[in-house]
Amino acid sequence: MRAAEVFQEISPADFFYRNRDIAGFTNPTRAIYSTIRELVENSLDACEIHGIAPDIYMRISHESGPAEGPGVYRIRVADNGIGVPSKVIPSAFGQVLFGSKYKLRQTRGQFGLGGKMAILYGQITTHSEAVVISSTGPTKIHELRLRIDIQRNQPEKIKEITHPNPDRWHGTIVEFSTEADYTRALPKILDYLQETAIVSPYANLTFVDPRGRLYRFERATTHMPDPPKETTLHPHGVDVETMKRIIDVTQARSLHAFMKMHFQRVGDTIARRFLEYAGIPAKKTPKNMTNEEIVVLVNAMKNFEDFLPPDSSCLSPLGEELLKAGIKKELAPEYVEVYQRRPSAYSGFPFIVEVGIAYGGRIRSTGGIVLYRFANKIPLLFDEASDVSWKVVNSLVDWRHYKVLPDMPIAVFVHLCSTKVPYKTVGKEFIADRPDVEREMLNALREVARRLSVFLSRKHTVEREKKRLDVFEKYLPKIASFSTKLAGKEKEPDVRSLLKSVLKHEEREEDNSRKTGKEDRTD
Amino acid sequence: MRAAEVFQEISPADFFYRNRDIAGFTNPTRAIYSTIRELVENSLDACEIHGIAPDIYMRISHESGPAEGPGVYRIRVADNGIGVPSKVIPSAFGQVLFGSKYKLRQTRGQFGLGGKMAILYGQITTHSEAVVISSTGPTKIHELRLRIDIQRNQPEKIKEITHPNPDRWHGTIVEFSTEADYTRALPKILDYLQETAIVSPYANLTFVDPRGRLYRFERATTHMPDPPKETTLHPHGVDVETMKRIIDVTQARSLHAFMKMHFQRVGDTIARRFLEYAGIPAKKTPKNMTNEEIVVLVNAMKNFEDFLPPDSSCLSPLGEELLKAGIKKELAPEYVEVYQRRPSAYSGFPFIVEVGIAYGGRIRSTGGIVLYRFANKIPLLFDEASDVSWKVVNSLVDWRHYKVLPDMPIAVFVHLCSTKVPYKTVGKEFIADRPDVEREMLNALREVARRLSVFLSRKHTVEREKKRLDVFEKYLPKIASFSTKLAGKEKEPDVRSLLKSVLKHEEREEDNSRKTGKEDRTD
Repeated sequence: MRAAEVFQEISPADFFYRNRDIAGFTNPTRAIYSTIRELVENSLDACEIHGIAPDIYMRISHESGPAEGPGVYRIRVADNGIGVPSKVIPSAFGQVLFGSKYKLRQTRGQFGLGGKMAILYGQITTHSEAVVISSTGPTKIHELRLRIDIQRNQPEKIKEITHPNPDRWHGTIVEFSTEADYTRALPKILDYLQETAIVSPYANLTFVDPRGRLYRFERATTHMPDPPKETTLHPHGVDVETMKRIIDVTQARSLHAFMKMHFQRVGDTIARRFLEYAGIPAKKTPKNMTNEEIVVLVNAMKNFEDFLPPDSSCLSPLGEELLKAGIKKELAPEYVEVYQRRPSAYSGFPFIVEVGIAYGGRIRSTGGIVLYRFANKIPLLFDEASDVSWKVVNSLVDWRHYKVLPDMPIAVFVHLCSTKVPYKTVGKEFIADRPDVEREMLNALREVARRLSVFLSRKHTVEREKKRLDVFEKYLPKIASFSTKLAGKEKEPDVRSLLKSVLKHEEREEDNSRKTGKEDRTD
Repeated sequence: MRAAEVFQEISPADFFYRNRDIAGFTNPTRAIYSTIRELVENSLDACEIHGIAPDIYMRISHESGPAEGPGVYRIRVADNGIGVPSKVIPSAFGQVLFGSKYKLRQTRGQFGLGGKMAILYGQITTHSEAVVISSTGPTKIHELRLRIDIQRNQPEKIKEITHPNPDRWHGTIVEFSTEADYTRALPKILDYLQETAIVSPYANLTFVDPRGRLYRFERATTHMPDPPKETTLHPHGVDVETMKRIIDVTQARSLHAFMKMHFQRVGDTIARRFLEYAGIPAKKTPKNMTNEEIVVLVNAMKNFEDFLPPDSSCLSPLGEELLKAGIKKELAPEYVEVYQRRPSAYSGFPFIVEVGIAYGGRIRSTGGIVLYRFANKIPLLFDEASDVSWKVVNSLVDWRHYKVLPDMPIAVFVHLCSTKVPYKTVGKEFIADRPDVEREMLNALREVARRLSVFLSRKHTVEREKKRLDVFEKYLPKIASFSTKLAGKEKEPDVRSLLKSVLKHEEREEDNSRKTGKEDRTD
């Protein structure tokens, strides 16, 4: 006699409570790191996507427990962002899978989960409530104390106060207690803030740690990148589920209008040619399509090759200049080259890959290539070896082909911008090897590797020729003197002109190889 | 004028649809691999936790698209497990975060997600419906065609048929079409089935691939391990959230009864002594506790040191014998040592670490240690470098201390059994570095490493002495002959007895070092 299995349903909050490891809340060290980064990223998003220069203040103070090892700490993160409307504060901070990040636009956050996980972790380890203070500017300041009802995935309001807002302050302050191993987390937190300062050079970051030490990362520029715009899907890679959702809400009466209305960069001509290619009448009403027709349409969209490349106005890459400046500032390399690929798309999500390569300077020779990873301006510090860029750098690029030897001091920088970064964990540690992303990274890296190889060849040639010239310089005068004696003459011939002519010849050679290197660039 | 942000709520199915990378459905290669493993693991669980020797049949057949690269394939997985009751079939296969795995018992599945993700991926890539055929034996056979309403996270029944069941067949068959890159996935699928056959030697696995090739892994034993039992929580590591949930449902009228009823291995004496330690009256009614008292109780439970170690009857480890047999069978090593740690717990979840170490045989020298990872009898094949065992093997154990050199052919096996494996991805690729798990792995590996070092010392001594004896054997007769001549004698002295005595002395030395090695073992 076998007992029947008991089946049950759990809420999303309960799921992430039971499986907090998948959101980066594994232990007190990782938890405090994840708490800080999730809150900081929400704050940066709240400023940046609305064109506000971010001013972010973080404080961690010790509440109880030992000074070393896990204890209870109080976290406070304050920003000058757009603020959260009072009526959504409870859900925005106390309900998992509720948020403003579920749209096609490049933001740091994209799961609608991180901030709530930070609050949830604080709640389950210290049983304290979270305090959220926010205003959108024209309104009053709202202060809310709340807890998360994990089993129901609902916010529980504990207390609500309204303050006047004479200065029309806007922004959000989040404060709560949580279990943390601060001492062990400190180095990673500082790495994180430093790399964030590099990729968001227009932000002020202030951090006061439990010992009262102040870390201040001042903005280096007031120039803000254009805020990313919200966009429609690119037709390549739209799946049947997405297509059905669009059909459900569309106002379009014909497929021709439908294509133009809901997909990126589809105009009259492309819509007409595409529908001919798909073999579906342009006048058909989208809502009247059968399941089979939808499948035919989606497959045709995947395979039609004349759609324009995706619109990247929803993306906000760093740009070659800023990337180069960041690398130079931090690593002072002997050589640096950066490269931005044209926009591409995977599963309908546009993305841009930017890469950099640098040689020498403060880069240390580690027996391999040092890899710096960024995604939507977030530095990624954990689980490097599971990232697609690691795979590309360490197993797809044949570095010997580019004259790179294992003991050379070389660093590679990979930045992926997308409306949706294909992270493999909700904790945003590393990026999955989606084929399109992998291909773009590979092509980008091959390009900078090719340029680096020209530099390395020149460096090698210069060094070899320097050795050769050293030999000439050393022996030519001796040969001259010896020959003079042998010939019974008195005046030695002048070898300087001879040395000069060798030197000139070498410089010409070098120039030629540099030009060839440039012409060698392909895309 | 800044536009306000738009907030929205999404369903769990929608969340995993949008973020399928975190569940192992990244690309057509990974997706087919994940599909097979999720279905096979559900099938093994449906047999094993009810003591049925598993008989699992898998078939992948090509439907459309190119033979190489991504195409549409039809998947069928059939088992002889306990079957799914007809009224829960729709939700069990068509609703995310609904299932039978949310309890304290060792199973392969634990997220209630994998099977549905496989069906969901098939649906979004091919728009086809899934067929589920199941019976619990005494009842009829139910056949259901269904789809998942992703936005609502609800199953959509398309057709339901009931068949008679004269033979009282029990089991489950799942069949659907999905996009897959089968050619690229094949090697990983075969690795997975082979390693599964090693850790589940009582299962029959039959696999028919798209080219009609049959792969058959026959059971090597009909002996089934004891099915894991469901258990209560261990008091160490219970958090406030869990405590409140238990208080909500408890029937206990006093804290004394409460402790005995809901926590592992807590009897009268321990309950009394613990409540004295916590400073809370034993007669207090649990439901009358204030929040503050709950926090005090939870903290006391974390810190009280006299609870008994966790009950491991809910766990089903491989056992030293089976693990050793598996390693010997597959790798035929020159030396193998296995070791099972005593049960431990993290956050209230009991777990057992089993490890093995092997030298030589078919293990290849790769310049590092070859790592085999298992969790709840699942082979883990991806993202090795992000796993806690990789961290332990490659950065926490100082192998030089155990006389292990980088070029030695050494393999390490780590198996973690737990009621909840702390995976970092929903795709169950690798395990988080929870401190307790890390500590147990480290101690277990140090133990087998210590035993290995004794073997390596002996091996080294034997080799060195063999060299020395070779020298003696070569030169002693010559010295004897030379000395004889020098002394003007005729009969050379017999060197054999001399050689023998050297040999005996060496063997004694060896024996001593072996004994010391054994005494050196600590825990």
